[in-house]
Amino acid sequence: MHSFEELSVLFKEKFDHKHFPPEPPTLYGPGNYFLTIGGKRIRPVLCLMSNELFDEINPDCYHVATAIELFHNFTLIHDDIMDKAPLRRGMQTVHAKFNEPTAILAGDVMLIVAYDYLNKIKALYIHKIIHLFNRTAREVCEGQQLDMDFENKKKVNIEDYIKMIELKTSVLLASSLQLGAILGGAGKGNQLHLYEFGRNLGISFQIQDDYLDAFGDPEKFGKQVGGDILSNKKTFLMVKTLEVANEYQLKQLSELAVSDNTDKIAATLRIFKDCGVDKWAMELKEKYISTALQHLEDIAVVASRKEPIKKLVALLVKREN
Amino acid sequence: MHSFEELSVLFKEKFDHKHFPPEPPTLYGPGNYFLTIGGKRIRPVLCLMSNELFDEINPDCYHVATAIELFHNFTLIHDDIMDKAPLRRGMQTVHAKFNEPTAILAGDVMLIVAYDYLNKIKALYIHKIIHLFNRTAREVCEGQQLDMDFENKKKVNIEDYIKMIELKTSVLLASSLQLGAILGGAGKGNQLHLYEFGRNLGISFQIQDDYLDAFGDPEKFGKQVGGDILSNKKTFLMVKTLEVANEYQLKQLSELAVSDNTDKIAATLRIFKDCGVDKWAMELKEKYISTALQHLEDIAVVASRKEPIKKLVALLVKREN
Repeated sequence: MHSFEELSVLFKEKFDHKHFPPEPPTLYGPGNYFLTIGGKRIRPVLCLMSNELFDEINPDCYHVATAIELFHNFTLIHDDIMDKAPLRRGMQTVHAKFNEPTAILAGDVMLIVAYDYLNKIKALYIHKIIHLFNRTAREVCEGQQLDMDFENKKKVNIEDYIKMIELKTSVLLASSLQLGAILGGAGKGNQLHLYEFGRNLGISFQIQDDYLDAFGDPEKFGKQVGGDILSNKKTFLMVKTLEVANEYQLKQLSELAVSDNTDKIAATLRIFKDCGVDKWAMELKEKYISTALQHLEDIAVVASRKEPIKKLVALLVKREN
Repeated sequence: MHSFEELSVLFKEKFDHKHFPPEPPTLYGPGNYFLTIGGKRIRPVLCLMSNELFDEINPDCYHVATAIELFHNFTLIHDDIMDKAPLRRGMQTVHAKFNEPTAILAGDVMLIVAYDYLNKIKALYIHKIIHLFNRTAREVCEGQQLDMDFENKKKVNIEDYIKMIELKTSVLLASSLQLGAILGGAGKGNQLHLYEFGRNLGISFQIQDDYLDAFGDPEKFGKQVGGDILSNKKTFLMVKTLEVANEYQLKQLSELAVSDNTDKIAATLRIFKDCGVDKWAMELKEKYISTALQHLEDIAVVASRKEPIKKLVALLVKREN
């Protein structure tokens, strides 16, 4: 059994090599560049942790974990184009550093190479693995589309918003865990508990992210507190506020949306608090975490094997950045 | 045994249904729209013809043929964004009708669904099929990147240009044939003859396309004759002319490139003829066709089984539009 940190090192060793041929460098250079920007590689490591719940790590799991990480990076490259984002993790995005056509193609070829890795696994599990990987991949695209659709909508139901977040961010965490379980020979029940564990955990992370962006301790929070408010992003807090605010607060919010007053963040936060969405968000987050933990509890393996995952959850839930 | 026309009908019956779920329509509607624009579906039908060379059609071949056609349409959607093309087959391109982010995502999800079809085939051939499909998919991306790179280059070697055309258009024809052969249980030798048949035929088609765009009979040619010249496209004729023209001709060509004189097409055609690239192109085309036919000849199956493919080649080679 390995801890998250140990598996991160093991995965990094396997992942940090060239995934693309050298020629033409105008196509593959941008993909290589983006992969060096880094990231926590949390999805592939969750895949390995889930796999190790059931047995020693199946060597095929490294291929699937690699495919997951490449898929995730493909979505980031394309999302950055769609969102016109100039930076990611403080570095230039692919379309900003090169150009849009190159970023489209660099993403495309990264997705294709993800399937090269899936194609390395043995025949026994290949159909199940690609089936789940593909369903998830489609869902992630659906989530991104809904996110863009929502940006043009004045009001979004909190249920629709949660569904979008689930598709855009949680299903890939969930599937990473289930894919590891499949390769570990887990039965359907255990697979689904891992999926639900990941899905609920993923939603709770997003709530926490949104909460910290608004109410985080500036000393501990890595980014500018209030960044989401400044960019008028639809977050859990904003969507819920728009649902429960009174007419006067709604009018204030629509004025704040078009303002670049220095008071914009503070004034919006006051409305959030007046509407009680800070408390609501913390309660909702706790609800998702406790559902996630119940699914972890229900996985039918000896409790000691769950320790690394439990420790990771404790760490992630406590984080303040 | 079926003719190209019969297999086209059979494929159309299988292909003309919804490949995507209904929700969200903002994501899947654009993909459905693009597939209704049509096309000759030549690649999937070649896959079926190649499969039938060896035995009755393997039902899995329809899945692979569908994946090929979806992949091809994915590349068209993304290429149209990169090339800023407003129209395809007289209809609005996806990014023009909807918007760029939607076109990026509609392409992405179409590629993912192509793999859904590949994942339907039996375990016996799945690794080989995905391996060849993926190599080809990467090569098509490489071809598109080289094409864009070349647009910014003053001069391109004819060898490099042929390599680009091969990657961008021929390898998918070639692989469609080899994929059908694999599913037909063909040996490696026969597979490679089919691949080379398709690769050489594909290059000859492109030479013919470029030739007809310049020298085609306006009555028979579907599009405006000289369209490539008007848009300063690097074609076989132009690339070769830039290689063999004298200094005076080169000066004329660079003046014509920035001119919108009504004489632009006629003047460019005169230089093409003075440089002898019309004859050169016809000879080069014949060379590729005869190499293609030699590979068809060398396939070790009884000659009668090759008749449908031979008839198709005769038809395609004679076409004047």
